[in-house]
Amino acid sequence: MTTLPATMFATVLTQDGYSGEATGPYIDSAGDWLAEVELPVPEPGPGQVLIKLRAASVNPSDIHFIKGEYGQPRVKGAPAGFEGCGDVVATGSGAEALRGQRVSFVTAGSGAWAEYVLAPAIMCISLRPEISDEDGAAQIVNPLTAMAMVDIARTTGEAFVVSAATSQLGKLMCGLGRDLGLKPIALVRRAETVGTLMELGASDVLVTTDPDVVIKFANLSKGLKPRVFLDAVADQLSEQIFCSMPNHARWICYGKLSPDLPTLTQAGQLIFLGKQIEGFWLTNWITSTPPADQARVVAEVQARFADGRWKTDISKRLTLKDVVSSLANALTKRDGKVIITP
Amino acid sequence: MTTLPATMFATVLTQDGYSGEATGPYIDSAGDWLAEVELPVPEPGPGQVLIKLRAASVNPSDIHFIKGEYGQPRVKGAPAGFEGCGDVVATGSGAEALRGQRVSFVTAGSGAWAEYVLAPAIMCISLRPEISDEDGAAQIVNPLTAMAMVDIARTTGEAFVVSAATSQLGKLMCGLGRDLGLKPIALVRRAETVGTLMELGASDVLVTTDPDVVIKFANLSKGLKPRVFLDAVADQLSEQIFCSMPNHARWICYGKLSPDLPTLTQAGQLIFLGKQIEGFWLTNWITSTPPADQARVVAEVQARFADGRWKTDISKRLTLKDVVSSLANALTKRDGKVIITP
Repeated sequence: MTTLPATMFATVLTQDGYSGEATGPYIDSAGDWLAEVELPVPEPGPGQVLIKLRAASVNPSDIHFIKGEYGQPRVKGAPAGFEGCGDVVATGSGAEALRGQRVSFVTAGSGAWAEYVLAPAIMCISLRPEISDEDGAAQIVNPLTAMAMVDIARTTGEAFVVSAATSQLGKLMCGLGRDLGLKPIALVRRAETVGTLMELGASDVLVTTDPDVVIKFANLSKGLKPRVFLDAVADQLSEQIFCSMPNHARWICYGKLSPDLPTLTQAGQLIFLGKQIEGFWLTNWITSTPPADQARVVAEVQARFADGRWKTDISKRLTLKDVVSSLANALTKRDGKVIITP
Repeated sequence: MTTLPATMFATVLTQDGYSGEATGPYIDSAGDWLAEVELPVPEPGPGQVLIKLRAASVNPSDIHFIKGEYGQPRVKGAPAGFEGCGDVVATGSGAEALRGQRVSFVTAGSGAWAEYVLAPAIMCISLRPEISDEDGAAQIVNPLTAMAMVDIARTTGEAFVVSAATSQLGKLMCGLGRDLGLKPIALVRRAETVGTLMELGASDVLVTTDPDVVIKFANLSKGLKPRVFLDAVADQLSEQIFCSMPNHARWICYGKLSPDLPTLTQAGQLIFLGKQIEGFWLTNWITSTPPADQARVVAEVQARFADGRWKTDISKRLTLKDVVSSLANALTKRDGKVIITP
């Protein structure tokens, strides 16, 4: 067995629990929420593995979490970061099969923004050699969410709506939708991204800053009849889009990029048109989806990264020691993920 | 065959289509929306019956409808009124079996606030002799809605929440819930109705004007874990109640008594807690529920009225010729239905 060091560098949470606010996945300074510390290297318990980090990715959920506005309470002093890729260097009982493997992982309790990370064995996916560390670092949260949500959309018809479509997740869903013969209608903020989205698989792209966006969407909706709205923004425009969809439409909120709170302007949309508003959280999907179905989705995700249909666009690379000083600035770069390496 | 008159007195709509507004089931003067006219007595087409009115009831949906804020467009010059009770005096082809019967009915196209009414035979229920005309006049919309919604609630656990619980529908649901061994949590506006609701079947009653109502509800919710909120109000307090319910709770909006528009203050309720917001409309239930299940529900409704477990509380009786002049004032009477007779 490799000799492990006694301590490790980690970027840890400086606050406990929930903030009680919802101001969005934006920060002025990572130092408001995170600190650099030297921690003992943790030991894996039953069903856990210890992973030496190769790369971690930064998702909007990580930022919501460090600010105390995510679905799990913070634990002060624990490392931040949900997702990454690395080598399994120690295993608890029942997890021995993963020893020595390069895996994608999602953490529970001990975050990914550290030199060593504890993860449950069931939240690790052994990586095929063709997959790069950077693709491996963003292999679970966005790709599984994309697959699971497009799976919902395809049961309701051909067309579906994707907001924040230039996000990594939005791009994955547009490509996946096109490959499945569906029509993804993409909502973007900037007109200059329309061409990219069309190339990636969107059947139509609307720009949310266009004053006529709701009218244009309503016209499109009459023809295409999208019945699922996969929405990461959840502002008043989202509500207007929902109200312009046909009967039995579902507004599925999976993120909250806008701090603005939407008002429900038309109760009749729910009552008479049989529409509904719901949420999607990968954690709930994992606990409620049979393992065989999950395995099928995981295999499809790896196949798509291995053959190049999907890739992770990188906007900025940071080392662990840059996170506190440079993460806020790195997050201002658009259209890609921030990747953290040891 | 009884000789029918050539014309009839009717209270008709003065406007077409939708208003585009949602100001609630309140009017200052019925004359803003309705007029008194003499119309030809209609002839039943295939599958239709002609009914000589005994009594019609006034539901909030009737008021939403005449104002153009219901799920169906108005037709100027057509009689208003959805629901009533009367004698079948003529039948179209395929509806002969109903000839001569006293029925509860819901209209389609030709409203109930007239001396003679056209109704689809499939929207008529032959009445048992023990049931009074007034109970017969309110036998479908509220009772079927109550049965169908409590049926949804009982699949999710023991407790459920009912707003506007002093409405006829609210009272039906509290009694039905108690009889099924469930715990209806009633929300009322006035403290003096608490005792009545407890007697009728509510397990707990909260007063919405109490400044601590949300805190009190949250405490109750922790213990009872209601997962369905049957809501006819749909204002900001409704949203706060929803946010205080446990995970996987469903906010089922079936009415819009408040003109205030609720803001969704916590996207995390949808995303992380798996809650959802939806609607209920009896018309959709009728078109989507198998006939055998509907027949079971209809039989149970009649049994409950026949043996006195349910009754229609009357707040005011009007004749057809009083509707335009007196309906607005009659609707200010609380805790019962306005009944219209020929």
